[in-house]
Amino acid sequence: MNANASWPHVLILGGGFGGLWVTRALRRAPVRVTLVDRSNHHLFQPLLYQVATAGLSGPDVAAPLRHILRRQRNITVLMDEVRGIDLAVRKVALAHGVLSYDYLIVATGSTHAYFGHDDWARHAPGLKTMDDALAIRRRILGAFESAERESGAGARDAWLSFVVVGAGPTGVELAGTLAEIARHTLPREFRNADPGRARIHLVEAGARVLPAMPEPLAAWTRRRLQRMGVEVQLDAAVTAVDGEGVTLKDGRRIDARTVLWAAGVSTSLPDAQFDAPRDRAGRVHVAPDLSLPRHPEVFVIGDLARVEQDGKPVPGIATTAKQMGRHAAHAVRDRLRGRTPRAFRYRDYGTLAAIGRGAAVVDLRGFRLTGFVAWWFWLVAHLFFLIGFRNRLVVLIDWAWSYLTWQRNARIIVGNDRDSRG
Amino acid sequence: MNANASWPHVLILGGGFGGLWVTRALRRAPVRVTLVDRSNHHLFQPLLYQVATAGLSGPDVAAPLRHILRRQRNITVLMDEVRGIDLAVRKVALAHGVLSYDYLIVATGSTHAYFGHDDWARHAPGLKTMDDALAIRRRILGAFESAERESGAGARDAWLSFVVVGAGPTGVELAGTLAEIARHTLPREFRNADPGRARIHLVEAGARVLPAMPEPLAAWTRRRLQRMGVEVQLDAAVTAVDGEGVTLKDGRRIDARTVLWAAGVSTSLPDAQFDAPRDRAGRVHVAPDLSLPRHPEVFVIGDLARVEQDGKPVPGIATTAKQMGRHAAHAVRDRLRGRTPRAFRYRDYGTLAAIGRGAAVVDLRGFRLTGFVAWWFWLVAHLFFLIGFRNRLVVLIDWAWSYLTWQRNARIIVGNDRDSRG
Repeated sequence: MNANASWPHVLILGGGFGGLWVTRALRRAPVRVTLVDRSNHHLFQPLLYQVATAGLSGPDVAAPLRHILRRQRNITVLMDEVRGIDLAVRKVALAHGVLSYDYLIVATGSTHAYFGHDDWARHAPGLKTMDDALAIRRRILGAFESAERESGAGARDAWLSFVVVGAGPTGVELAGTLAEIARHTLPREFRNADPGRARIHLVEAGARVLPAMPEPLAAWTRRRLQRMGVEVQLDAAVTAVDGEGVTLKDGRRIDARTVLWAAGVSTSLPDAQFDAPRDRAGRVHVAPDLSLPRHPEVFVIGDLARVEQDGKPVPGIATTAKQMGRHAAHAVRDRLRGRTPRAFRYRDYGTLAAIGRGAAVVDLRGFRLTGFVAWWFWLVAHLFFLIGFRNRLVVLIDWAWSYLTWQRNARIIVGNDRDSRG
Repeated sequence: MNANASWPHVLILGGGFGGLWVTRALRRAPVRVTLVDRSNHHLFQPLLYQVATAGLSGPDVAAPLRHILRRQRNITVLMDEVRGIDLAVRKVALAHGVLSYDYLIVATGSTHAYFGHDDWARHAPGLKTMDDALAIRRRILGAFESAERESGAGARDAWLSFVVVGAGPTGVELAGTLAEIARHTLPREFRNADPGRARIHLVEAGARVLPAMPEPLAAWTRRRLQRMGVEVQLDAAVTAVDGEGVTLKDGRRIDARTVLWAAGVSTSLPDAQFDAPRDRAGRVHVAPDLSLPRHPEVFVIGDLARVEQDGKPVPGIATTAKQMGRHAAHAVRDRLRGRTPRAFRYRDYGTLAAIGRGAAVVDLRGFRLTGFVAWWFWLVAHLFFLIGFRNRLVVLIDWAWSYLTWQRNARIIVGNDRDSRG
């Protein structure tokens, strides 16, 4: 329905899973909605690692927000950046203007955190945005190109050594795919360097890979990674990162010209924006209905919200963000009707992680799958949730082609590194 | 066959159509070949405008050079940049080293030229590389996003005004596609700006569009563009370009926040590299066999070479570069056998240009096609010549999908503009 100027204004910051699902759930509500995102697209983050590892092209895992929402006449999409939130006067400052709101949904998500070592960022890029993915792709493919140029064996080995920091789902996916690229995709294409000699180190501060998964699945994943040629280092916190490699807390040194960061996560809003209490990762302790304490007109959702259920925090994954998004939309409608919103309840539909070709782990609330069956489950689930019919078809073709040929479809280096890499 | 260290070394600079076709034609020659390119991929330039206009994704029109050439055992591919050529000692300085050669093929192609106004470059990007295409895509999509953010009608109109400078094939393709995006792809997706009000100006210094095409086809193209909503300005040389628009030689001013450059072409090697005579565009006057005067071991091909045939220069198109590439390879083989290479003869297979959905012009040595039939011819020809089976399939799906839905499949803004655009 078309927006009516007298309707309350719902301002949504962020077009990820949280923000997009709020927006969709407000389709038939008597509100004017403005969705602000700093990029023009919704990103299907669960497959972003495949863009970074040259399996998919960027547009395969992204769709323009205004295209997704084109039929929703009560919404305006703006590409802009949030500069500040003034809760007292209900205004949000953007890079290109100021917007007032009646209801505010904050869904700007998380970014990677370097535990106070921001100087590590230029040596060890993280994976959150499309530009991150293209930068990582440039580093990975560029490292093999650099190895091919080197005449000395030592310099070549340093280019053929990769460290992935953090063994959560993203770290596992990156390390597994890197091993496949080195062992299967590239070998016959180089004359001087031997990609098959590449070393892939997966370095994790904790005692196991995939800490959110049940222990047997984590153990299975570690063994599978090792069989693929990934060197898994547990209890190995990183204490230094530079252009030549990383140092571990026991003093060991791993020489590697390419370090990828899949460890810390931090919220992407400055602490000063809210006077609500926050946890160590910067997540806001929200009220049971996801609103901000003392600000019932403000909801904080997705990776930004700290919600505990059954004694532990709900996981920061896409499913959670979607559920919170739908809940926030219902809460706004409840408020409009003078009702008190219900408390948010997280429904656990299970977690899953891909390791590589034909290998994944799936935990559906106790029902566990590993290996090829899990991988099919992972594949169908991701394809199903991927937004936009055309993307699904092209992604399916890309995957089938990769599977049959071991090739990667997007081995194209774009952009320039603005760092000091040789 | 595997390379033998005693074989002569053929060094090829540039992996475009010229360089790649030399390399392939040397497959069975008793030579060691090194192909150097500053990017890791061969680019199918005839479709690059579709990446710039968000119809195709980057990897659709590019393939890694070392993947294309993986079975050719006598070749090494290096990703590196040429810094200088020393003809006297037969060495080429690269950013990461120095290579000697017995035979040198220079095929580094052309870049856009601003007729001495290099400061125009940041306001009016040209289209030669993948990064150029992504930068232009960012500008085009970003302009509509900016228009949606503006509250004043004047500022909105400036963002909805586009100037394409130069009405050769690239300029015609860009202008036609821009008109389609504005009229058909975007309209329903904006709430504040009206993309249908966008003005697309195609500005040409000469007396007609498509100067290399027969006059009736040029006239047909101009009428077709006008019917699509493109404002074609002929005899309109540009005398100034800034962030607010362009000034024409008769003093007229076109306000436009987005200016795209499809006019001048210049060679991408500095003039100082060769002591051979050059034409105004910097092209080297080569010997009839494409070698450099007084340097029979050096061949200059593709857009870098000035060759006249039947009283006029051969056109700087992909077909020419491929023919020159094959010729240079034969010439090297002739020299190795002590024979004198033949003179290069350009074979004109015809020229073609796309204007938009269902519209193209084709000139096959006098046999002319326009409209829908020409467009089919254009489509099949481009699909046929596109490198890599998988790309063809995905491109075909993308095209079919676009045709049926008027949508563009790659409307994803990546990277940051490092210029001063609002």
